[in-house]
Amino acid sequence: MAVYTDVGEAELSAFLARYDLGALLSYKGIAEGVENSNFLVRTEAGTFILTLYEKRVNRDDLPFFIGLMEHLAAEGLSCPLPVPPREGSVLGELAGRPGALFTFLEGMWTRRPNAEQCREVGGALAGMHKATQGFALRRPNALSVESWRPLFEGCGPRADDVEPGLSDEILSELGALEAAWPSDLPTGVLHADLFPDNVFFLQGRLSGLIDFYFACNDILAYDLAICLCAWCFEQDGAFNVTKGRAMIEGYRAVHPLSPAELDALPILARGAAMRFLLTRLYDWIHIPDTSFVTKKDPREYLRKSRFHRQVQSVADYGVSLESASA
Amino acid sequence: MAVYTDVGEAELSAFLARYDLGALLSYKGIAEGVENSNFLVRTEAGTFILTLYEKRVNRDDLPFFIGLMEHLAAEGLSCPLPVPPREGSVLGELAGRPGALFTFLEGMWTRRPNAEQCREVGGALAGMHKATQGFALRRPNALSVESWRPLFEGCGPRADDVEPGLSDEILSELGALEAAWPSDLPTGVLHADLFPDNVFFLQGRLSGLIDFYFACNDILAYDLAICLCAWCFEQDGAFNVTKGRAMIEGYRAVHPLSPAELDALPILARGAAMRFLLTRLYDWIHIPDTSFVTKKDPREYLRKSRFHRQVQSVADYGVSLESASA
Repeated sequence: MAVYTDVGEAELSAFLARYDLGALLSYKGIAEGVENSNFLVRTEAGTFILTLYEKRVNRDDLPFFIGLMEHLAAEGLSCPLPVPPREGSVLGELAGRPGALFTFLEGMWTRRPNAEQCREVGGALAGMHKATQGFALRRPNALSVESWRPLFEGCGPRADDVEPGLSDEILSELGALEAAWPSDLPTGVLHADLFPDNVFFLQGRLSGLIDFYFACNDILAYDLAICLCAWCFEQDGAFNVTKGRAMIEGYRAVHPLSPAELDALPILARGAAMRFLLTRLYDWIHIPDTSFVTKKDPREYLRKSRFHRQVQSVADYGVSLESASA
Repeated sequence: MAVYTDVGEAELSAFLARYDLGALLSYKGIAEGVENSNFLVRTEAGTFILTLYEKRVNRDDLPFFIGLMEHLAAEGLSCPLPVPPREGSVLGELAGRPGALFTFLEGMWTRRPNAEQCREVGGALAGMHKATQGFALRRPNALSVESWRPLFEGCGPRADDVEPGLSDEILSELGALEAAWPSDLPTGVLHADLFPDNVFFLQGRLSGLIDFYFACNDILAYDLAICLCAWCFEQDGAFNVTKGRAMIEGYRAVHPLSPAELDALPILARGAAMRFLLTRLYDWIHIPDTSFVTKKDPREYLRKSRFHRQVQSVADYGVSLESASA
């Protein structure tokens, strides 16, 4: 949940004066997104989302994020579309922060994904990877393999408080990942955070993707590996091969995966598990304890990391080797 | 801001099946209300607010609150109206909590009230007091004069941490309030929490009142005293007599205030300041410190309490004595 900034009616009306959307009728801070403040805004012209970019988002990255959403929407992918003002940039300023207005996307995120939804997510991710091939802007992945060791060092000596031996286990896995991380796989623009709360479904079908504020250039198949981590484990920690197969098949139905990409999925998934383990560990250690904020348990991703470490091949994700090499 | 409970699509759809509102299109947790979880819900029939009642609200009080809103709406007062299901009670159950669906009220609360808005609030409060004269249900005020001493005792010995000498000052004022509290003024149904964030304005006019979850039976003029505290002080702590006059005149234009009620306003306002000083002090002491929650400063109401203690008569609130006795 996230509303970090309060906005007054007068300043919001002044912001909206740049648009042809009629009078402001109401606005409410909404519990969506963790990096920014979001408001549901109703005007005589309809319902919109106002996003204010808080400090954790680098202002220099905003043209990449905004441009990406415009590009994706122009390519027919369903995502929030920046609403253009009468003139000037879609990026404005409000309450001392950069802000932009977006179309409102109907749909709901699923708390308990099923295999068919995993298939649709795989397809939508592949659709995004295809649609961004012509996108000109670039943003390096600030949370890729070379950032993980410094991130871990930033956690200080308290990792073993989370689980005894965790420091040694992470250091060993970091060494393995740095040594084995692929360098010759196809790259492109990743969503890089396509968790269930960033995918909307409406009446049983995927209706859109949101929250592109981790999007970046990196290995495309790494994005699929992130989704395998985020969507295909059960609440008891078990990997669901039916969901894994559906997700990978869904992806391949839209965009090909080379044998090299399929071979690399286990190491990429180990990397994805490490990336979320480390950011959660960092927050676990650095965010003060409180009864109001539920910090995400880093051990969830420790368990996922261990699962992916014992995977032999992509077959363990549900993809048969014949079809994998087809 | 408040979203305490997560709700899944399946359970929300099941809840909505009792209504004739078409398919569920989207829902978002919103940052509104401090006692309950609120969601903005969009269906094929329109936009609604879903309120889930959390533990701090006594379930036995819900028929009073819901009935009050229905009564007020029937009397023509603009407030959220419980949406009736096809059959059965407007109170349902969702995510293990009582919940109800309400009409969506357009409008925005004002961060910086002006005198004209204070006048409108006075009128709306008087309209509510008039409209509830025929309301049959009763709910005693759990935060009235007899509750303040136990509330202060519940704060323990730490009041002086907030400001040296605060304990003695509160004890002295509690004694004065208990001795001088009026017992013969007209009573009725109070909003009892009509702060600026509970009053919506649209295009310059008051468009509705929300959040009736402190409503109760008590001295009517005490409700006006609460509003004087909540609306008529400037950010530098000074009481604005122009706003005070406008609010009292706005009230009297709709509903009379007897000379006895006017005479009692200073003591009632001291009580109102004490009530919010004590609940804020209680939260200040009992809610753990965190970088995420901004606790409201009890000293704001200490300053208001001191102001009201040095008031000589209602003339100090901007009401001339001739008009007061008229």
